[in-house]
Amino acid sequence: MLPDTGRYPELAERAAALDAADPLAALRDRFLLPAGLVYLDGNSLGALPAAVPPAVEDAVRRQWGTSLIRSWNTHAWWEAPLRVGDAIGRLVGAAPGQTVVGGDSTSIQIFNALTAAARLRPGRPLLVTDPDHFPTDRYIAAAAARTLGLEVREVTPGELPGFLADDGERVAVAAYPPVDYRTGELHDMPALTAAAHAAGALALWDLCHAAGALPVELDALRVDLAVGCGYKYLSGGPGAPAFLYVARRHQAAFDPALTGWTGHAAPFDPTESYEPAEGIGRGRIGTPPMLSLLALEAALTAFDGVDLAELRAKSQSVTGFFIDCADELLGGAFEVVTPRSPQRRGSQVSLRHPDAYALVQALAARDVIGDMRAPDLLRFGVNALYVSHGDALRAVACLRDIVAEAAHLPYLTQERSAVT
Amino acid sequence: MLPDTGRYPELAERAAALDAADPLAALRDRFLLPAGLVYLDGNSLGALPAAVPPAVEDAVRRQWGTSLIRSWNTHAWWEAPLRVGDAIGRLVGAAPGQTVVGGDSTSIQIFNALTAAARLRPGRPLLVTDPDHFPTDRYIAAAAARTLGLEVREVTPGELPGFLADDGERVAVAAYPPVDYRTGELHDMPALTAAAHAAGALALWDLCHAAGALPVELDALRVDLAVGCGYKYLSGGPGAPAFLYVARRHQAAFDPALTGWTGHAAPFDPTESYEPAEGIGRGRIGTPPMLSLLALEAALTAFDGVDLAELRAKSQSVTGFFIDCADELLGGAFEVVTPRSPQRRGSQVSLRHPDAYALVQALAARDVIGDMRAPDLLRFGVNALYVSHGDALRAVACLRDIVAEAAHLPYLTQERSAVT
Repeated sequence: MLPDTGRYPELAERAAALDAADPLAALRDRFLLPAGLVYLDGNSLGALPAAVPPAVEDAVRRQWGTSLIRSWNTHAWWEAPLRVGDAIGRLVGAAPGQTVVGGDSTSIQIFNALTAAARLRPGRPLLVTDPDHFPTDRYIAAAAARTLGLEVREVTPGELPGFLADDGERVAVAAYPPVDYRTGELHDMPALTAAAHAAGALALWDLCHAAGALPVELDALRVDLAVGCGYKYLSGGPGAPAFLYVARRHQAAFDPALTGWTGHAAPFDPTESYEPAEGIGRGRIGTPPMLSLLALEAALTAFDGVDLAELRAKSQSVTGFFIDCADELLGGAFEVVTPRSPQRRGSQVSLRHPDAYALVQALAARDVIGDMRAPDLLRFGVNALYVSHGDALRAVACLRDIVAEAAHLPYLTQERSAVT
Repeated sequence: MLPDTGRYPELAERAAALDAADPLAALRDRFLLPAGLVYLDGNSLGALPAAVPPAVEDAVRRQWGTSLIRSWNTHAWWEAPLRVGDAIGRLVGAAPGQTVVGGDSTSIQIFNALTAAARLRPGRPLLVTDPDHFPTDRYIAAAAARTLGLEVREVTPGELPGFLADDGERVAVAAYPPVDYRTGELHDMPALTAAAHAAGALALWDLCHAAGALPVELDALRVDLAVGCGYKYLSGGPGAPAFLYVARRHQAAFDPALTGWTGHAAPFDPTESYEPAEGIGRGRIGTPPMLSLLALEAALTAFDGVDLAELRAKSQSVTGFFIDCADELLGGAFEVVTPRSPQRRGSQVSLRHPDAYALVQALAARDVIGDMRAPDLLRFGVNALYVSHGDALRAVACLRDIVAEAAHLPYLTQERSAVT
């Protein structure tokens, strides 16, 4: 059902030329994408890496099924959170021993990172975060502040440096996303991190929309703490566990609210009170969901040998080409809300249109998968490991056809699905 | 490598007769157990149910791989935490709408249950728990008390009624396991729940070693809160997510510390501050690890049509027979620490021996899998869905041979594995 893009010969030729010259084009074969589908929702759930099904089958049938409990030792399940953590660390500029995938969701990791940050900066009553942050980050910030008797202050990234200059000595931690999940705007991570440090505060970054999408330099920027999910650009599978980064210099004093048995110094020799493990292992909490964790580990092999600078360049090229297509093919009812400067956007393009929900449904009916964010944003995520310039043109051409044919009108009156 | 039990004709005949008369014997076919293995560690990691591999493969290849993000709607991923919760609810005496498998570990669920309990009983400064509780329960109780400015009091189940009678008005919640994870002793859940209520406190039960092992009557006992893991007697796979039960009468006021986006009333229409969903849905936190969650859902079908009273009777028969075998075949160096009264034990048998670690290693080398708890307990879990009287005899006979041959001595000097 994908549109014939031959109707737009100039754009079609540009797409073909860019894709022919794409040094990463072959990476698409590392994913099992359904034929005839344009998948632009890898910023919500990454596509299935080809390495995952055999790895999961092995984990289920051979490891769990035949080695049973012994797998914790013989298949090194016990070390998996540290091993997978280091694998993600390589993608976010973290030297080994600072990243852990304890098995918990991003929400839990944010709670632990925020509470630990507050304890690293005692006497500072403010947790500062982005009013446009992903909802769970805001809800969890409020929850962390409530349990610790602190206060949340919502400050936009643009206003943050000024706020820190004025009130910074009261700020324990600044918790921000590098990429706005709705608009795709990329914030100035080096400058904001430096501003937090100048105020004596910690910088906590939520990398959900950055890890695997663009180069991140946690160590080089001297970021203090970071979290991120495993299921967007890392393609680790639905609800894949999140990661936590704690800079080595903070690990000895890292003292989060949630302290479960797998983060203990001697998990099988329990002590009267909790004694944290050395190093990043103290970021572990409970028993990790191994099938989801091992799926994530296999998924990360899709990045093997990939130069993240090259991936970033392709991502900027595809998102830029998407914007060009939108400018040429879509009418004025659509507004490109993602920054046009490639340096100022993450790896997605968002368009504003009052009928966003209906349009996304109509696109899906024609095998172009994006998503929407209420009330009026259409989001198109570009995972440059598997999304091509041709995909971008097909998506925009499809959107143009839908509007021309008013094919989205039947969805205007439809009740929204549970997940949009 | 399993021993020939024909050397003990009386015990062998008893085992054969009991197994021949076992109405649940056919249920073993619902599990993919390696041939020639006696698996008595289902209280740590349940065996692989036959329903799981095809369900996981479908979740990976068809749902994630081809339906991609749409699976949240088309494959009802979004509703899975409530659906799987109700499936577990049926096994623990909970009417629908009171149990949720949000995707988090038992540790996280305990933290949320304890903090919510404290907020349901404001002005009561004590969280009371078992000094012999599983370590994570104790560590998390300390963590919850610390964040909320409360105090933990450790009181044995035997002393709890007296403590509650004296100091009960200061107690917010009594958090206990029905089954001691080391000794297998079954505590008096009805009496302790009633004692908590008489003091105006809440009763929180950790069902890790009870759910799927024996009948639990959460609603009938008017239990307030309960948690439990998915990977022991429920056989949901390594690190399968935990469940949370909140009695319906407490749900409107259930106000836990961890409040993430999936527990929100309108997850895709975020609000300024967190607004909890109606009902048990507010027990959800972050995005659940779907592969592990769907594996658990498939695993629970192993209980389809099973009468839990019949399962309990078989469990008592097998554990009782195990103790008989130990009495007859093992020397005085072994002490049976599990209560001999069937009404006073869960579904495991624990033996005390100073060389517990080495003996468990030697057993594993002969295809009998149990585990140990430091310093000196050998644990043998009986999942009556797949463990037979013959298994019990083979395990004890094997242990006798090992001692007779001193086959465990080489393990005495071995460094302990990561997971024991």
